[in-house]
Amino acid sequence: MPKKENSKLRVISLGGLGEIGKNLTVIEYANDIIIIDCGLGFPDEDMLGIDLVIPDVTYLEENRDRIRGLFLTHGHEDHIGAIPYVLRQINPPIYGTRLTLGILKNKLAEHALPSKPDLRCVEAGDTVKLGTFSIEFIHVNHSIADACALAIGTPVGTVIHSGDLKIDVTPIDGEMIDLTRFGELGKRGVLLFMCESTNAERQGHSPSEKSVGRSLEYIFTLNSNKRIIIATFSSNVHRVQQIIDASVRHSRKVAITGRSMLNIVGAAVELGYMKVPDGVLIDVNELRRYKPEEVTVITTGSQGEPMSALYRMATGDHSQVTLGANDLVVLSSSPIPGNEKLIGRIINELIKNGVGVVRDPSLEVHVSGHAYSDELKLLTALVKPKFFMPIHGEQRHLAANRELAIEVGIPSNKIFVSEVGKVLELDRRSARFAGSVQSGNVLVDGYGVGDVGNIVLNDRRHLSQDGLIVVVASVDSFSGFITSPPEIVSRGFVYVRENEELIEEIRQIAADSIEKALKRSRRIDRADLKNTVKDDLSKYLYARTKRKPMVLPVIIDA
Amino acid sequence: MPKKENSKLRVISLGGLGEIGKNLTVIEYANDIIIIDCGLGFPDEDMLGIDLVIPDVTYLEENRDRIRGLFLTHGHEDHIGAIPYVLRQINPPIYGTRLTLGILKNKLAEHALPSKPDLRCVEAGDTVKLGTFSIEFIHVNHSIADACALAIGTPVGTVIHSGDLKIDVTPIDGEMIDLTRFGELGKRGVLLFMCESTNAERQGHSPSEKSVGRSLEYIFTLNSNKRIIIATFSSNVHRVQQIIDASVRHSRKVAITGRSMLNIVGAAVELGYMKVPDGVLIDVNELRRYKPEEVTVITTGSQGEPMSALYRMATGDHSQVTLGANDLVVLSSSPIPGNEKLIGRIINELIKNGVGVVRDPSLEVHVSGHAYSDELKLLTALVKPKFFMPIHGEQRHLAANRELAIEVGIPSNKIFVSEVGKVLELDRRSARFAGSVQSGNVLVDGYGVGDVGNIVLNDRRHLSQDGLIVVVASVDSFSGFITSPPEIVSRGFVYVRENEELIEEIRQIAADSIEKALKRSRRIDRADLKNTVKDDLSKYLYARTKRKPMVLPVIIDA
Repeated sequence: MPKKENSKLRVISLGGLGEIGKNLTVIEYANDIIIIDCGLGFPDEDMLGIDLVIPDVTYLEENRDRIRGLFLTHGHEDHIGAIPYVLRQINPPIYGTRLTLGILKNKLAEHALPSKPDLRCVEAGDTVKLGTFSIEFIHVNHSIADACALAIGTPVGTVIHSGDLKIDVTPIDGEMIDLTRFGELGKRGVLLFMCESTNAERQGHSPSEKSVGRSLEYIFTLNSNKRIIIATFSSNVHRVQQIIDASVRHSRKVAITGRSMLNIVGAAVELGYMKVPDGVLIDVNELRRYKPEEVTVITTGSQGEPMSALYRMATGDHSQVTLGANDLVVLSSSPIPGNEKLIGRIINELIKNGVGVVRDPSLEVHVSGHAYSDELKLLTALVKPKFFMPIHGEQRHLAANRELAIEVGIPSNKIFVSEVGKVLELDRRSARFAGSVQSGNVLVDGYGVGDVGNIVLNDRRHLSQDGLIVVVASVDSFSGFITSPPEIVSRGFVYVRENEELIEEIRQIAADSIEKALKRSRRIDRADLKNTVKDDLSKYLYARTKRKPMVLPVIIDA
Repeated sequence: MPKKENSKLRVISLGGLGEIGKNLTVIEYANDIIIIDCGLGFPDEDMLGIDLVIPDVTYLEENRDRIRGLFLTHGHEDHIGAIPYVLRQINPPIYGTRLTLGILKNKLAEHALPSKPDLRCVEAGDTVKLGTFSIEFIHVNHSIADACALAIGTPVGTVIHSGDLKIDVTPIDGEMIDLTRFGELGKRGVLLFMCESTNAERQGHSPSEKSVGRSLEYIFTLNSNKRIIIATFSSNVHRVQQIIDASVRHSRKVAITGRSMLNIVGAAVELGYMKVPDGVLIDVNELRRYKPEEVTVITTGSQGEPMSALYRMATGDHSQVTLGANDLVVLSSSPIPGNEKLIGRIINELIKNGVGVVRDPSLEVHVSGHAYSDELKLLTALVKPKFFMPIHGEQRHLAANRELAIEVGIPSNKIFVSEVGKVLELDRRSARFAGSVQSGNVLVDGYGVGDVGNIVLNDRRHLSQDGLIVVVASVDSFSGFITSPPEIVSRGFVYVRENEELIEEIRQIAADSIEKALKRSRRIDRADLKNTVKDDLSKYLYARTKRKPMVLPVIIDA
């Protein structure tokens, strides 16, 4: 790579543009590269069987020697979740605040890593100098504690990366986002503001996390005769703290259930991010010793996840918690798009069993951790950047954030709506798109990372719609005859026992088809045999059933 | 069935309780049965490959002789869509209003029916007398024209079935719901009110369809330089009328695209439910002759359906309409739960191509056709029924409607939240649940009705997650030896070309496994052979890949 005097600053997102999650930004100048976040994405509904999506980091692998560090804005999965996988290819020092690294450590402990990760703890206000870069951590509000934006000093000017944030003037941990610092940097001059876009479509200001506390107080007061079960995101330490506070005020013990909830609460208490008076926490096994009105249960599963603690409670499948008319379930979350039906299913199950259910928006039991449009405009107005790049969002969110920047006076030709892999090149005065680097989705399925691609996914989709028919025929390669009727095995197509006639037809069509193909040529052409069987059977079955099962012919040499 | 003097009235829903759609209510007394609606449901996301869900009507088939008629409240799919399938089992006279039967006729024409359906046209205000029943059609407002509620006179009292409805004091076709008739019946005494629950959770009153007209006027005025493309539900005749009216006011021609939109608009114009001035409609092929500001396009696809006209336009796959910066797309609909991501995908594609997008709730371009809580309370208060049964909704909606009925003074012990198949038995004074009849989901997949059940669906789910491995081994039944290395065929598991080593391992494990099983017994036990291969391979693959592909062993006699 060039190391010349007049190098340009290059900004590349390997994820997080035109999509929610998988956030990873690369910033490079001459011989130095820094990485901001390394998150995972969740599979689309057509990525059948896929567990996780991580960014393609080939570009980083190829430029391994220039990487100075990985900087984490906060500890959410979509910002740190890909690290265990990416550490197999690169192993830079990882900088983050205490809670972020605490959560990361828990996560890394579950993976076998090729080498020991190099974690370096910082706090908001710290600046790290690496090569030509200086990276300053700025305190922000978000739905997890210890979240930061980054101000990156570069030879051509300052770049601010928002991370995920909101403006909360009454946050739970007592510290409002450091707006002053954004403003100071703005006054000195900011070259580029990379600003998150998640809620750019939402009007006004996001409500404060504290408003959830008021709703909880109301719910606890009105339901003083019931057991209260609250499902929320495990990483929302402040939310969990408020639930514990309300419980303490109402003299309730608190039981925590769900693996990730136990993990994160454990880390947060240990690191001092959560305060729980002695004797408040009880084990979920002790619940039966208490009357309903004496306990609160905090659980995972607010997105309707089918294996979560809440799901198991709702379906009567949880060994320690059985729900009934003495219970009130509070869903302290809002549905992530795509999860509406799963959540609806849980609500229906609960209501069927007489359980009370409170959910947004009937009461403000959840607030978003992402700035709404008025907050985004305020930030952009404070930062007054020369160039603006909306990040973290689908196309619609990026476009909406672009409009907000225009509203506060950024000229539209200084706003760059980029794409994953696209390179934005900047100097002190100008910015322009300049090509792109390798990028994309790497699919994780079980232990496999990247071994499932479009061909495999297409097969899964095909199989999922109409199942398959395996035709096994043995052919005598001497005589060129089929030695016995083909074996037919079918799965996911029709219920075989009730459709023996159809299976017999399939066997006959397959046999005829093979004989036809065998007659056609003197030598046995396996590819031709297979294609003939596949075509003939597929055509027949579509005409007969209007379905297109996968046909898999296997030709055996007798 | 008994025909004694003191028969009870029996009310049974074969669909529409604890679910959205598949509405079908059975009302019977002694020797007479009438059916209300016969709708289809849409498959859950875990019903892979299934096209439609229809109610199990075994109970009706078994009581065919007692069925006097099928009464349709309106022409939506979830009220009439199962008729073509159910007519294969029963063929009662079908009563409905003109538009309802018009839509039904179009639908029936696409199916081969065993006998000619017997359609009988009625209008709101008419009463049909059949056996001991008299069935009166009452005009209501809904998101389709010509919708009715039904008042059924029975020997033990009057039953009112709401159908789907709302209260619209400024409807498009000039007629408000016949509240007076509900009130008159209420004053005379109503035994049972079966009331729809879709929007029972929503506070207040639903806005009038006319408010959409005002929003359209605003959009047309502000976008006088753009082509306007509006996607909506094809059956919403009033919505389409309002779009045409706005277009005419703004001197635009109107092109209609999407098969169902063309069908329904055709039927509505022909039957006089829609008024289109001469020369306004143009063919979609003529669009290129007009400037953008001279045309409106009305299309299907407002739910993001992947084969719809709008989807094809958004992805650049529509032969006549290419969208760009001169276009404004209006989504005149709200997402049906589960479709949010599909719709989001279309919006993102449009925005990526610079197309303007207007959607609810940024402007009121859609209103619901279902009554909100205040309307439901008003209706129940007017009808003043002795007994109340919430219908049409998931558990949560039924429960919410129950609360509304309690609010207006129905005692909670006179409210019956029922389930599909459950029998409610009534006489003049009392009501109680009395057993249940056969009921459930019949799945339609291609031409197959009911030939796909849980076993097939489980196989599809299994195949969709991790694909399959077919192991074909030929075994010499004389010698009891495997004659050659097994053939391995895999689909949807890993990309075979890049994992030859793994496939070779699979072949070896399979061969070892078969030999082990062959050695175990003298006779060749095929079931044992297959199970051994399946178990050994599954265990190996899970340990190696953390995946569970379906293993399909086929043993051939050499």
